[in-house]
Amino acid sequence: MSTFAGLWDDLRDVGRDARTGGYHRFAWTPADHTLREWFQGAAESRGMTVVVDRAGNQWAWTEDPDAALAQGRTGVVLGSHLDSVPDGGAFDGPLGVVSAFAALDALRADGFVPGRPLAIANFADEEGARFGIACAGSRILTGALDADRARALVDADGVTMAEAMAAAGHESAHVGADPEMLARVGTYLELHVEQGRGLDELDRPVAVGSSIWPHGRWRLELAGEANHAGTTRMVDRVDPMPRLAATILAARDAATAAGCVATVGKIRVEPNGVNAIPSSVTAWLDARGPDADDVRRVVGEVAAASGADAVAESWTDSTVLAEDLAADLSRLLDDAPILATGAGHDAGILARAGVRTAMLFGRNPTGVSHSPAEHADPDDCLRGVEALATVVRDQLQG
Amino acid sequence: MSTFAGLWDDLRDVGRDARTGGYHRFAWTPADHTLREWFQGAAESRGMTVVVDRAGNQWAWTEDPDAALAQGRTGVVLGSHLDSVPDGGAFDGPLGVVSAFAALDALRADGFVPGRPLAIANFADEEGARFGIACAGSRILTGALDADRARALVDADGVTMAEAMAAAGHESAHVGADPEMLARVGTYLELHVEQGRGLDELDRPVAVGSSIWPHGRWRLELAGEANHAGTTRMVDRVDPMPRLAATILAARDAATAAGCVATVGKIRVEPNGVNAIPSSVTAWLDARGPDADDVRRVVGEVAAASGADAVAESWTDSTVLAEDLAADLSRLLDDAPILATGAGHDAGILARAGVRTAMLFGRNPTGVSHSPAEHADPDDCLRGVEALATVVRDQLQG
Repeated sequence: MSTFAGLWDDLRDVGRDARTGGYHRFAWTPADHTLREWFQGAAESRGMTVVVDRAGNQWAWTEDPDAALAQGRTGVVLGSHLDSVPDGGAFDGPLGVVSAFAALDALRADGFVPGRPLAIANFADEEGARFGIACAGSRILTGALDADRARALVDADGVTMAEAMAAAGHESAHVGADPEMLARVGTYLELHVEQGRGLDELDRPVAVGSSIWPHGRWRLELAGEANHAGTTRMVDRVDPMPRLAATILAARDAATAAGCVATVGKIRVEPNGVNAIPSSVTAWLDARGPDADDVRRVVGEVAAASGADAVAESWTDSTVLAEDLAADLSRLLDDAPILATGAGHDAGILARAGVRTAMLFGRNPTGVSHSPAEHADPDDCLRGVEALATVVRDQLQG
Repeated sequence: MSTFAGLWDDLRDVGRDARTGGYHRFAWTPADHTLREWFQGAAESRGMTVVVDRAGNQWAWTEDPDAALAQGRTGVVLGSHLDSVPDGGAFDGPLGVVSAFAALDALRADGFVPGRPLAIANFADEEGARFGIACAGSRILTGALDADRARALVDADGVTMAEAMAAAGHESAHVGADPEMLARVGTYLELHVEQGRGLDELDRPVAVGSSIWPHGRWRLELAGEANHAGTTRMVDRVDPMPRLAATILAARDAATAAGCVATVGKIRVEPNGVNAIPSSVTAWLDARGPDADDVRRVVGEVAAASGADAVAESWTDSTVLAEDLAADLSRLLDDAPILATGAGHDAGILARAGVRTAMLFGRNPTGVSHSPAEHADPDDCLRGVEALATVVRDQLQG
């Protein structure tokens, strides 16, 4: 009997909007704090020791990783994240963390004793919903995101990440790369709900990840001149809205032509009054694709159409996960399909920092993600837990 | 020596954003409450009696208007509003109220004793910045806005107008048309900063209003399906953003072709996440023009381009102010120019309810309004006060 369902139920109501059914679990908020407390409780009730690294990520260890490291035994880490996009789904993130605890429970119920340290990780601020940079926790950890830049990031209310961390009880002065923590991680394995219908079309419950598309976020500032909507002649206007329209259409058309995906999903209008020509519009562009040059060309075309510079907020080049490990896992899991993904993950950040990394994807029948409609069937969740347990058994006795 | 400058200074910091210099004075907020207290204090220090009507508008009377009405003497009311658009200017609204007090002071300093009751009015929620309906106070007063509909209007935080009024100490259960209050008003005169460069081009400090263009606000709901920006193929998307782009461009093009003005100045994106295809976009359209049929045709073209219905939030047909009064005032003020305006005003709402109404406009050298850049020179403000005093002297001894 898997412990998955009980663990899953613990999280059901945290940060949930009763109207939409979606989740609002942003980094360093009270909802996030509740999730982090849940993580600590789940770990401690299993006799694990929880350590928070300098980036704010939580690590629950079954044994002292440094003592093991001194003996040449690196850890195997299972993990994902607990935060969400605005009005996000239940699975993106939590599925990996909850499945990791359930897999550990299943291994222990079988009497399995790992030969290397095992950890479960909860990465902070994976979605970047609050401060604009995805995978902030793993990027800070690996040094891919400079600590000073991270501390100075501001949310929509003008609160810096440093202030938000401090308010949540995390000492922001020590924020920074944490190579000692990273050295403990021999292998990182992230189970994630699939964000597409690949497995559904293949009629398979679990896939192994091969690579993560190059992807990034850009900000375009379109300046205007605020004025009265009723009294300012059309010819006299400096209205940023038509430039926003051009930006949106260019993103769609350039991405379609290049075989990429591009999205304008976030807009800020100032002052956002019905009868005021905006003084400024800020648009954010998310662009990804199989080929980095194609993605950069799409961004260039969108910037040209907008008449503004595209300021990169983040960029991650194509990430190939450990190919031999992926092949091993596929064989181990009944020749599970090997899929690439357009979604960024902490696994990709760790892989780029030299960690031996693999991903598993769980079937999502609708293919929808970042939405309350995101779904995975309970049976498929259990098959994900079994797959994780199978892989851990293989890796930790090897 | 005019008392204008001292009164003006009282308001300088209320609801002001120190960063932009703009004002955020929305109906029934703490900033609005401060302004209403200032109004009451300015009136009472002049021996006036302040009455709040059922719509929440404040009226400061020099004598009992009902006793005068029983003698056949109706009141002359000077007024405007104290609320603002988001990040609005200092003059749109407050100029009329402050100038009214300064004009009364000037008349009294001259020993002038009015032959009819004089009142100064502060209309509630003229800009509609919080609940979406402009001139809400005068519309409720005259019955043009149904009381139940008004009470149920919600702001961006889901607070109803009834709740906001109650929180500000106004008994919302009694909200509604107030014909008794309206009967006291023989003539309404509103001084307002010009929202264009008409006076600047004519090199004149003051104009008289002739008419207010037909104008309205419409809401367009563009539904989408939330999904992951990185993993959803372009062809699989139900993205409302390209429809928003079409809406913006149609507003510009249709208005330009029809000799109207149309503005998409306010947008709400859900969930507004960088890596989420929006589940919905709401766009608000403000459209106005010299001819009502042209305005309606523009709105129809925008709705067709958006693929959504344009839901009218407000509509005000062309309003001609009292023509004989306008001609009288122009003669009285050294043949002041007579100008139409594309901006809605409480004066227009009262005129449509049968009140004899006139407007004066004060020069705005930049023509900019609804922006921190809105401006009137101190000398022109004093000439506005003199013009008001001249008109009141004429009307109250006539």
